[in-house]
Amino acid sequence: MLGNVLVGQSGGPTSVINASLYGVVIESRNNKDKIGKVYGMVNGIEGFLKDNIIDLEKELDNKEALKTTPAAFLGSCRYKLPDNHNDYVYKKLFEKFKEMNIKHVLYIGGNDSMDTVNKLSQYAKINGNDITFNGIPKTIDNDLIITDHTPGFGSAAKYVATTVREISLDAQVYGTPSITIIEIMGRHAGWLTASSILARKFKNDNPTLIHLPEVYFNIEGFLKSIEEKLKEKKNIVVCVSEGIKDENGKFICEYNGDIEKDIFGHKNLTGCGKILEKIVKERLNIKTRSIELNVMQRCTVTNACLTDINEAVNSGRFGVKLSLNGETAKMICFNRIDNEKYMINYKYVDVGYVCNQEKLFPKNWIIGNNTDIHYDFINYVTPLIEGEVNIERKDGLPVFCYRK
Amino acid sequence: MLGNVLVGQSGGPTSVINASLYGVVIESRNNKDKIGKVYGMVNGIEGFLKDNIIDLEKELDNKEALKTTPAAFLGSCRYKLPDNHNDYVYKKLFEKFKEMNIKHVLYIGGNDSMDTVNKLSQYAKINGNDITFNGIPKTIDNDLIITDHTPGFGSAAKYVATTVREISLDAQVYGTPSITIIEIMGRHAGWLTASSILARKFKNDNPTLIHLPEVYFNIEGFLKSIEEKLKEKKNIVVCVSEGIKDENGKFICEYNGDIEKDIFGHKNLTGCGKILEKIVKERLNIKTRSIELNVMQRCTVTNACLTDINEAVNSGRFGVKLSLNGETAKMICFNRIDNEKYMINYKYVDVGYVCNQEKLFPKNWIIGNNTDIHYDFINYVTPLIEGEVNIERKDGLPVFCYRK
Repeated sequence: MLGNVLVGQSGGPTSVINASLYGVVIESRNNKDKIGKVYGMVNGIEGFLKDNIIDLEKELDNKEALKTTPAAFLGSCRYKLPDNHNDYVYKKLFEKFKEMNIKHVLYIGGNDSMDTVNKLSQYAKINGNDITFNGIPKTIDNDLIITDHTPGFGSAAKYVATTVREISLDAQVYGTPSITIIEIMGRHAGWLTASSILARKFKNDNPTLIHLPEVYFNIEGFLKSIEEKLKEKKNIVVCVSEGIKDENGKFICEYNGDIEKDIFGHKNLTGCGKILEKIVKERLNIKTRSIELNVMQRCTVTNACLTDINEAVNSGRFGVKLSLNGETAKMICFNRIDNEKYMINYKYVDVGYVCNQEKLFPKNWIIGNNTDIHYDFINYVTPLIEGEVNIERKDGLPVFCYRK
Repeated sequence: MLGNVLVGQSGGPTSVINASLYGVVIESRNNKDKIGKVYGMVNGIEGFLKDNIIDLEKELDNKEALKTTPAAFLGSCRYKLPDNHNDYVYKKLFEKFKEMNIKHVLYIGGNDSMDTVNKLSQYAKINGNDITFNGIPKTIDNDLIITDHTPGFGSAAKYVATTVREISLDAQVYGTPSITIIEIMGRHAGWLTASSILARKFKNDNPTLIHLPEVYFNIEGFLKSIEEKLKEKKNIVVCVSEGIKDENGKFICEYNGDIEKDIFGHKNLTGCGKILEKIVKERLNIKTRSIELNVMQRCTVTNACLTDINEAVNSGRFGVKLSLNGETAKMICFNRIDNEKYMINYKYVDVGYVCNQEKLFPKNWIIGNNTDIHYDFINYVTPLIEGEVNIERKDGLPVFCYRK
C-alpha cells in the first residue's frame, strides 16, 4: 500500500502560499507510483489534531486558479508545539499519522512553522519513525536565513514598490507642501520596507526617506530631516517599517499605549504611521497623511509576481521530490547562481539550523544617514519582482479557489 | 490665427483623470485645422492664476502611458472661485485667456470643479465673451447627477471589489473568530462602499455587513448584528463608508475628537474604521482588525478598469468636439442605452444644473435592515468594472508619465 502525503500551511498568509500547495499536489500526482493520497491539514497542525483533514484531490476541481488564490487555501494556525517531546500531543500526532498511513509531511510556512517541522522530525528520529518532515519556506518578510530569498517576498515587494510609486504621484497633485507616511509590514526585518526604494524613478523622486527596523529611529532626527528635505521639494513621501524602535528599544507604535502579544510572543504592531502623522502635524504644522499598506501587502494577487509564483510552485514540487528521496528535517532554499541573467537552483538545508533565526537587512545596505538604501539591494531585488501574472477573471473580478 | 485650448484638472485625483486629459490632447491634435496649441494649467485654475502653464504637446513624449498614469498629471487644486462676478480674479483670468488666445477651456473634475466651470461660463455670458467653458466629469464617488456614472468610479469600484475579495480570503485563514472592518471612501454617497457587494461570491460569503452613509448608523444595532452573524460563521468582514453618521447626524469618525475642514467646507473624514475596531474589541472581546483602503482606491492603476479608461478618454475627446461646436457651460454625461449588452452614448447637460448637487445611492437599493445591497445595483455596476488594462512595465514596475 502506497504511503500518503500530508500537507499544511501555517503562519501569516502570502499571495503565493497556495502556489506552493499547488506544487505539492501536482508533484504528488506525478508520482502516482510512489504516493497514495494527498491530504491537507485544515488550519495547520492545530486543525489536524482536531481531525480537520481534507482529501486534496477531491477538493481541488480548479487547480490552476489555486496558483493565484491569496491567503491560505487550507487555512492556517499559529500553534506552537511543546518543547518537551514527552508531551502527549506528539504521541497523538504520530498515532494519527500511522492511522492515515502518512509517509511524508510537508509544512509550508515561515520561521515558526519551521520550528514545528524541526520538532516533529526530532521526535521521529528519537522514536525511530521513518516519516519524512520537510518545510517549504513562505514569508513576505524575507527573513529566513540561508535561502537567497523566500517565496512570497517578491510579490509583496512588487506590491509595495508599485503602490508607493502610485501613492507618490497621488501625494503630489496639490501645490501645497505635504508629508505622506507609508507604514509597511516587517516586525524586525526591513526587507519589504526597503523594497519601496524601487518606486523612486529619478534623483529626488519619492520615497524621500526610508526607515527600517534594523537601525534606531530618532524622532527629533526624523523631524529635522523632513525640514531639510522640504527645502528641496514640497511633497515628501516617507516609508517606515511597522517595527521601528527608538534608542531605548521602545517601538514607536508603543508610544500609543499598550499592545497585545500573539502566541509566539511577537508584539502585534500597528500604528507607528498614525503616531508619526500626529507628531509631524503637531510639531511641523504641515498637511500630513499616513497610509498603512496593511494586509493588502500579503494578499493582493492582481499585482503578484510571476517569478515568485513559479518559484513557489517549484518549492512545493521540490519538497515532494526531496521527501521521496528519503530526506527529512530539511527546508527548501534558493541558491542564486547568476544575477546578470537571474537564475536560481533549489537546494535544502537542515531545518533545525534555520528555524527560530532571523535574517535581518544588511546594515551596509542602509545608507544616507539611515534614511536610504544602497544600490546593491536594488540589484538584488529587481529580478525578484519581475513578470506579470495572468489571472482568470469573471465579470471583471479574479476567480479564486474556495474550500468546498 | 487659430484659437488655443486650455485644460485643467481639479479636485481629488482618480486612476483615470489622466485618460481624460489624454482624450483632450488627442482630439485637439485631430483638429489641427481648428485648434492651435493645447495648454495645460498646472494645479488648476489656482496655478493658472500664478502663470503656471505648460505646452502639453512639448510636455508629452509618451502619450500612451498617460492613459494609465494615476493622480493628476497637471496637478490639481481645491480653489473656489468667488460668488461675486465683480471680483478682480475674474478680470484677471479673462485677461490671461485673451493674452494666450484661449478659445476653449476644459476642466476635468467633480462637483466643485463643475462649480468653477459654471462661474466662468456665467461671467463670459454676462460680458459677451465667446470662450467656451465645458466640464469633463471625474470622481470615484459617482455622485454627479444626470450622468449614468462618472469616469473614475469604475476603476475604484473594481479596486474595492477585488481587494475586499482578497481581504475576505485573508481574513478567514485562522480557525478563530474575527471581525475585519474595511473603511471605504465616500463622504455622503455610498456608491463605492456598495461596490464591495461584488466581492461576495456565494450566499453567506463576505462581506457580511455593508454600511452606507445614506442611512443612519446605529452602534448598538451594529454590535447586535455582528453577534447574530457570528452564530452563522466565524470570520466576518464589514464594509463601512468613511462618512457613516449616527441618528443625530454626528459622523462616527467624530467620536474621536475634532476634525478639520477643507476649503469647500467638507469635513476631512478618516478613522471611523479604527473607531469601530476599538468599540467592537471592547464590547465583544473578539479579535478585530480595521483596514483603510485609503488613497489606493483612487490611484491603483494595476487593477484599473479598461471600460473606465476608454470612457474617460472618450469624455475628453467629446469635450473638445462639443467645444468646437460652440457649446458652452456644459458637462459631459453618459447615457446608458442598453444594459443587456452594456452600451452608452455621450451627451451633455447644463453645468449650472449639475454643479453643487449630489447623486446619493438609491434608498431602495439598501436592503437587509440597512446592511445589504439590492441585486439591481449589481446589475448596474458589473459592466462598469469589466475589462483589464495592459500597463507598460519596466523592471516589473508600471511606467508612468511625469511632468518635465
